[in-house]
Amino acid sequence: MNIPRTSDPRVVIIGGGFGGIALAKKLAKQDVQVVLLDKHNYHTFQPLLYQVSTGGLEPDSIAYPIRKILSKYPNFFFRLAKVEGVNTSEKVLDTDIGQLKYDYLVLATGSRTNFFGNKEMEANSMIMKTVPEALNLRSLILQNFEEALLTDSLDERDALMNFVIVGAGPTGVELAGALAEIKKGILPKDYPDLDTRRAQINIVQSGDVILKGMSAKASEKAEKFLEELGVDVWKNTRVIGYDGNLVTTTTDLTFRTATLIWAAGVKGQTIKGLDSTDFVTHSNRISVNEFNQVKSFTDVFAIGDVACMISQDLLGGHPMVAQVALQQGSHLGDNLLRIFNEEPLQPFKYKDKGTMATIGRNKAVVDLPRFRFQGVFAWFVWMFVHLFFLIGFRNRMVVFVNWVYNYVRFDREARLIIRPYKKPKAKVIPIEAAKSKT
Amino acid sequence: MNIPRTSDPRVVIIGGGFGGIALAKKLAKQDVQVVLLDKHNYHTFQPLLYQVSTGGLEPDSIAYPIRKILSKYPNFFFRLAKVEGVNTSEKVLDTDIGQLKYDYLVLATGSRTNFFGNKEMEANSMIMKTVPEALNLRSLILQNFEEALLTDSLDERDALMNFVIVGAGPTGVELAGALAEIKKGILPKDYPDLDTRRAQINIVQSGDVILKGMSAKASEKAEKFLEELGVDVWKNTRVIGYDGNLVTTTTDLTFRTATLIWAAGVKGQTIKGLDSTDFVTHSNRISVNEFNQVKSFTDVFAIGDVACMISQDLLGGHPMVAQVALQQGSHLGDNLLRIFNEEPLQPFKYKDKGTMATIGRNKAVVDLPRFRFQGVFAWFVWMFVHLFFLIGFRNRMVVFVNWVYNYVRFDREARLIIRPYKKPKAKVIPIEAAKSKT
Repeated sequence: MNIPRTSDPRVVIIGGGFGGIALAKKLAKQDVQVVLLDKHNYHTFQPLLYQVSTGGLEPDSIAYPIRKILSKYPNFFFRLAKVEGVNTSEKVLDTDIGQLKYDYLVLATGSRTNFFGNKEMEANSMIMKTVPEALNLRSLILQNFEEALLTDSLDERDALMNFVIVGAGPTGVELAGALAEIKKGILPKDYPDLDTRRAQINIVQSGDVILKGMSAKASEKAEKFLEELGVDVWKNTRVIGYDGNLVTTTTDLTFRTATLIWAAGVKGQTIKGLDSTDFVTHSNRISVNEFNQVKSFTDVFAIGDVACMISQDLLGGHPMVAQVALQQGSHLGDNLLRIFNEEPLQPFKYKDKGTMATIGRNKAVVDLPRFRFQGVFAWFVWMFVHLFFLIGFRNRMVVFVNWVYNYVRFDREARLIIRPYKKPKAKVIPIEAAKSKT
Repeated sequence: MNIPRTSDPRVVIIGGGFGGIALAKKLAKQDVQVVLLDKHNYHTFQPLLYQVSTGGLEPDSIAYPIRKILSKYPNFFFRLAKVEGVNTSEKVLDTDIGQLKYDYLVLATGSRTNFFGNKEMEANSMIMKTVPEALNLRSLILQNFEEALLTDSLDERDALMNFVIVGAGPTGVELAGALAEIKKGILPKDYPDLDTRRAQINIVQSGDVILKGMSAKASEKAEKFLEELGVDVWKNTRVIGYDGNLVTTTTDLTFRTATLIWAAGVKGQTIKGLDSTDFVTHSNRISVNEFNQVKSFTDVFAIGDVACMISQDLLGGHPMVAQVALQQGSHLGDNLLRIFNEEPLQPFKYKDKGTMATIGRNKAVVDLPRFRFQGVFAWFVWMFVHLFFLIGFRNRMVVFVNWVYNYVRFDREARLIIRPYKKPKAKVIPIEAAKSKT
């Protein structure tokens, strides 16, 4: 990779998510060369992906060109590249566009969907971690209704209009709420010749609460909101199999559906050379010390979802959320500057600013450190906070226009099948293997 | 196709472009069953596709769900379908989702790119007639610059940064202008480590004027605008070959480029059963009488680009532009109602409302029937007219926000490679065959 070497130390950051960008911004004004690698040329605002899937927002307004974020900084280099591995003793990265030497390496690779080894689920279900995946889901949802119009088989039609979401974290809950609003507000108008009342939205959760990690009040209220919207909430139920048509669970419950959306877990996205059990702890995350240093290194760091900072108070590490990534990115920036200035490092301390989730129009739940509230006000707070954290003035304006429009008109206009999703032929894999793991 | 038969006559419209939608709107309030078929579930505002390709607009804001346009009308049916052919004696359409009987058939299938038989060109060049094609072009342009960063070969780098547009109609001219603005305003900031001054934008035209069909003053001024922006305009030059790298022409002129955009012509998009020489005239358009009836039929019509209404005054038929389609759609709606009421048909008369093209910021040319003007005011008129004809309040707002932002900030933020474009392996086809045709 032809990036000029200067006398400044070179920090290579893998990943342009919340953590990577926060770190790059911190370093970009300093006497340090920053090289950021990402397999996309844009930063994705993941918390709003579900609105792209459900036609409420256009993909371009929750993505932002990485080059633009840092175009003011002369010492910043971006390369569109897939990292294939690292040789930590030589301090060299292997990528699909060549090798790259580093002085300091920061893994900000985030997380990917965790199927917990269930190959059948992986082959047949939809996920929503990237913009193209969110668009695939949008296309599939719309294609399902077009197809439902064509079939004479009631079973098939019901399966096409039945949605099963696995996992009741924020992603699952927000998606379920949005689908319920589409069912109520849009389907009857768009498909007058289809009995869209038969459409069903199911959310299945292995534990006994939804939005685990939020307060009991928030969980309860969110569940009530979902039920008001007509979502069927199934708790204490673990999905174990899906052959592209039939969903089986640990209870008697089964579903026939053409669309299963898997939002039941994520795991760290490691890279070759740092993926052995020497480095990796639970959920495939990389174990780091309080300075985000990877075990046994002084020049290799991990931040955000892929990092797991275990302490006596926090045996599971920090939650895999944007706030942690943002704070760790910014904090590591300061610490790297301390290294260059030969000052002692400062340990990372997470400031929990709260958690929130929106279920639908005027329906959200917010847990702040001092206050907890639900309903209309929470919904406005949710919107304000998301607009605030979105990168780029244009994006904020466009999202704002869409939200106002959607609110006033009870509508979501981006219901376009730009690139039809070709569902792979359903793969039936014996579920014994999967079952034995649960 | 399971669409209920009623006592109302059934009008089947193929194509949801300007003509098809105008016709459907006219008929939707009447005692007539309207079935609209399209292979996309959205209407595309084609005049702004080039802004999607160049990162100025998001695709969702120039597309509009067809179901939504007509959701208020109970007698309207939409099906996402590809029409495969027609049996006019049985009055039956064949589609990929089954057969459909019609009482009246209207072809509003529009046009597609015309390569004039040059297979090599067809295999290797980019086009921009649909949203996915516009997005492919966007991805390719951005990928080219990312790739240009990686190569050590100056020839290869130049080819990656060299753009050749064939055809200087409105599409070619508007695209050339937009690329020139990107070169000037965005590339130096986004790619500080690339000598983007070497980027070249060429537009090649076989005739001796650009924007043929507009006034001499408009053509001249547009050419001057392009030159001010740094676009190289090549007239009296016909491109004859492109092997994926080298462009050859009828003159000594050649180009080395990774990207050739073909905007040199369109032809009617006919369907099987109406594509024989009995029906088709020049540019593969279907010959129609002054009522838009296809020769020898009283129940089959064609409107817009695919129709060619030849008269003594108009030997070439109407221009293949949105205005003609809109007016013919609306007029045919009235004529169909006359048929149902057993009144005599009225001949179609085209009202030329003018032509316009934008070359860049503050640079447009407008030919109205009574006035001709160029420059800043023309540019505002161009924007106003395009906003006005765009379907949907939300789309207008979002496009407006983008335009204001782009104007104030000299920027285009949608430079995202959402789905990378995989360039097919360049196909070298002997150009003798193509040459002999020119």
